[in-house]
Amino acid sequence: MFETAELNRKIDKTEYKKQLPELRAALLQAQFALSKSNIPVVIIISGLDGTGRGEVVNALNEWLDTRGLETIAINSLTDEEKERPYYWRYWRRLPARGRISIFFGGWYVDPIVQTVYGKMDAVKLHDTLTHIRRFESMLIEDGALILKFWLHLAKTEQQKRFKTLENNPHTRRSVSKRDWKHARLYNQFIQSAEKTIRQTDLGQSPWLLVEATNSCYRNLTVAHTVLNSLQKRLETPQIKPVTTITNPTTFVSQNSKTILDTVDLTQTLSKKEYRKLLASYQGQLHRLAWAAYAKKRSTIIVFEGGDAGGKGGAIRRMTQAMDARLYQVISTAAPTDEERAHHYLWRFWRLMARDGRATIYDRSWYGRVLVERVESFAQEAEWKRAYSEINDFEEQLAKHGSIVIKFWLHIDLDEQLKRFKEREQVAYKQHKITEEDWRNREKWEDYSIAVNEMVARTSTDFAPWTLVAGNDKRFARIQVLKTVCKRLENIIV
Amino acid sequence: MFETAELNRKIDKTEYKKQLPELRAALLQAQFALSKSNIPVVIIISGLDGTGRGEVVNALNEWLDTRGLETIAINSLTDEEKERPYYWRYWRRLPARGRISIFFGGWYVDPIVQTVYGKMDAVKLHDTLTHIRRFESMLIEDGALILKFWLHLAKTEQQKRFKTLENNPHTRRSVSKRDWKHARLYNQFIQSAEKTIRQTDLGQSPWLLVEATNSCYRNLTVAHTVLNSLQKRLETPQIKPVTTITNPTTFVSQNSKTILDTVDLTQTLSKKEYRKLLASYQGQLHRLAWAAYAKKRSTIIVFEGGDAGGKGGAIRRMTQAMDARLYQVISTAAPTDEERAHHYLWRFWRLMARDGRATIYDRSWYGRVLVERVESFAQEAEWKRAYSEINDFEEQLAKHGSIVIKFWLHIDLDEQLKRFKEREQVAYKQHKITEEDWRNREKWEDYSIAVNEMVARTSTDFAPWTLVAGNDKRFARIQVLKTVCKRLENIIV
Repeated sequence: MFETAELNRKIDKTEYKKQLPELRAALLQAQFALSKSNIPVVIIISGLDGTGRGEVVNALNEWLDTRGLETIAINSLTDEEKERPYYWRYWRRLPARGRISIFFGGWYVDPIVQTVYGKMDAVKLHDTLTHIRRFESMLIEDGALILKFWLHLAKTEQQKRFKTLENNPHTRRSVSKRDWKHARLYNQFIQSAEKTIRQTDLGQSPWLLVEATNSCYRNLTVAHTVLNSLQKRLETPQIKPVTTITNPTTFVSQNSKTILDTVDLTQTLSKKEYRKLLASYQGQLHRLAWAAYAKKRSTIIVFEGGDAGGKGGAIRRMTQAMDARLYQVISTAAPTDEERAHHYLWRFWRLMARDGRATIYDRSWYGRVLVERVESFAQEAEWKRAYSEINDFEEQLAKHGSIVIKFWLHIDLDEQLKRFKEREQVAYKQHKITEEDWRNREKWEDYSIAVNEMVARTSTDFAPWTLVAGNDKRFARIQVLKTVCKRLENIIV
Repeated sequence: MFETAELNRKIDKTEYKKQLPELRAALLQAQFALSKSNIPVVIIISGLDGTGRGEVVNALNEWLDTRGLETIAINSLTDEEKERPYYWRYWRRLPARGRISIFFGGWYVDPIVQTVYGKMDAVKLHDTLTHIRRFESMLIEDGALILKFWLHLAKTEQQKRFKTLENNPHTRRSVSKRDWKHARLYNQFIQSAEKTIRQTDLGQSPWLLVEATNSCYRNLTVAHTVLNSLQKRLETPQIKPVTTITNPTTFVSQNSKTILDTVDLTQTLSKKEYRKLLASYQGQLHRLAWAAYAKKRSTIIVFEGGDAGGKGGAIRRMTQAMDARLYQVISTAAPTDEERAHHYLWRFWRLMARDGRATIYDRSWYGRVLVERVESFAQEAEWKRAYSEINDFEEQLAKHGSIVIKFWLHIDLDEQLKRFKEREQVAYKQHKITEEDWRNREKWEDYSIAVNEMVARTSTDFAPWTLVAGNDKRFARIQVLKTVCKRLENIIV
């Protein structure tokens, strides 16, 4: 693969200096247009040691307007990063729309280096690369431009480079023992890189091989590619859905019966039973929350459900039982403008708690396939691809060791009406009922279909849905507590 | 001081349960009103071990709507916290307007505990408490409500409590060796707490002593106080400036001559000299940036100046010289809605880099006393108090070991006109000139006065201003580079 990057291409200094002014002006102009667009740009600069990745990044920083870009080098992980799912370190540095993030190696460092070090076997590598493909596709479908550069140097050239650096007293220190160690592993690195590049060379985010023997050629090639890609991408600012969607529901059969009809809403619990069970499960939960903290296992509990479905009450029965240091409740409402400037999952990544804590979501990322679908806030292509994005997201949480528990609190139309009227009569509950709630009732059917499809597509073994019979509040609350306790008990104890 | 909290006040369980429903309804109502207001609420729950701080926090979490509040317990610092100025750990958890943050001890833990442990002497304690007073005043002036509770238990009661806990097999584990150690230090803790409380008991954020012998009394007292304070504060949602401002400029004499007139704008540099000096200082800066990284010293460089003053060009001459891994450039524009929901300094705290990095601000927190003052975006009382807020802020940076360097790039009206016209003629510079720039020229006088006062009030020994003669771009850029190199050289090498 790398033969095409060993052709000894050169640009001499005079030519380099001649090209620069125009190139830089064009780069700044493109970046200015970018800043007005809704496109986030990710640039990854990879390559073996000695290929001049740092020099390329510095050149880009010099030629672009640094106010619109960020450079990200992740050398050693902070403990805040270690205590969160793997991709948190990248999500928190992803560019907002109109901005550029330049990553040193980015998510490609681990697969390439760990494979050489024998710390990543074929299966794990396969999983890692699959995940990278999905991650990049997701960003691209959201409008991102991803540019991936691999700087290449032939084996002899790499050694020559290191020797030259060592012979110069000013640069001697920049060649480390690790560099020489890696140089001896040249063939393994090239093999590992080739495999990684081959499997992540996607149509939408292709790798760009750059011959790094001559630094002028190298810098200009990267810069021109950045420029051309920006210009091209800016010509079509609005990414169109990649596939035409012809059959809106291929997965779930579309008759009036949904999975929600299987929930037996007649189930109830007497006051006496309720009290007994409540005390018992709350005691268990208190103990389990501390056990999860001790074992550094996070718990993520999602509550979805129609208006007046009893989410708040169920959440309170859980938080009553837990120490306030161990949980946070996140209420998902309309996104802020910073959140809107990123992929819709970004706002959930940024709030990710450290290991050992419980996070309870009162509505969640499922808004994408519920309210955003029903109200057409999201385009069809957007909410359709959200199912697999969400499954990927939750799988990452689970892989990190988080326990993901999801509830749909189901009530029927009559019960909702009863509760709405109740709310209107109790002084301190009046604020909980708005005109929007009444309007939503008219979309009951649409919501049922959306919920049905959501449950079908996102109930996984690592993050299953529990449908809660919500007409009887006591029954619902106990079902929630019991489910949480059982999941925690199974995993932690 | 604590005698008033040893009166054996009690509320029995029946009375407690009777009061609860009404209290909780009122709390929820007040919190709902709060959520629509522009008031951030900070609640601090302090007290000796065994006084039930955790129980109180849990009760508040149960009675309030957890979706509008966050509980913050800082047990051990993360390395990300250690590598930033002390108060970063608090700033990043301060509530947005309409929300509540409950801190376990908050910024009072260290002064009380460290004094007992002999790790904080009288001088450092004095500084710490002075800083706390200023910090709280600042938040209050920005509209915050701060409630500080001290839960008190007599010595005999504390020991009784620990023994009871130890005798119960379910709670035995909750009494630690550290608890008993602290119990033996009861008198010292009380002394230390008394001193701290006395010196931070401000009219606007008074301490509230709560007798903690009886848990029902304790919880109800805290909850009622929270309720009453919320209600009272909500009656006057718009905080009025505390002092009437009669004399607008007491500090700087108000004639047409300003400190900017002392800048000799005729200074120039030939192309040849410039090239030589640029190469020399850029080489120094490259080395010094790495040295600062190695010594974990952060550098914070602020650029302020009129339109077309040459900020961008000067910044680029610096970033060209530094490794892109070592710096970030932050361009300060209009705040986002999340930033607007906090104190104006919050946005700068949140972007604080870790130790060893350089952060270059293209415009900064000084916008408060420049554009916000001139354009009346900030009220007079707001920008007037900003001087001391900024001095406090920069002092914290300096105390942490950061090197703060500030530049005002000064040009005269004629030079600005020349540059505006130039920009209009160069294709890729046209976007840099807007109608607003032309409008700002008419306010030249107002800006001069504002700059003059800013320099007078915020040029400190830990963060001095450098006025840069900007008419000659070459001269200005070298002055900037030279100043930065000298400061770094003095401090780091």
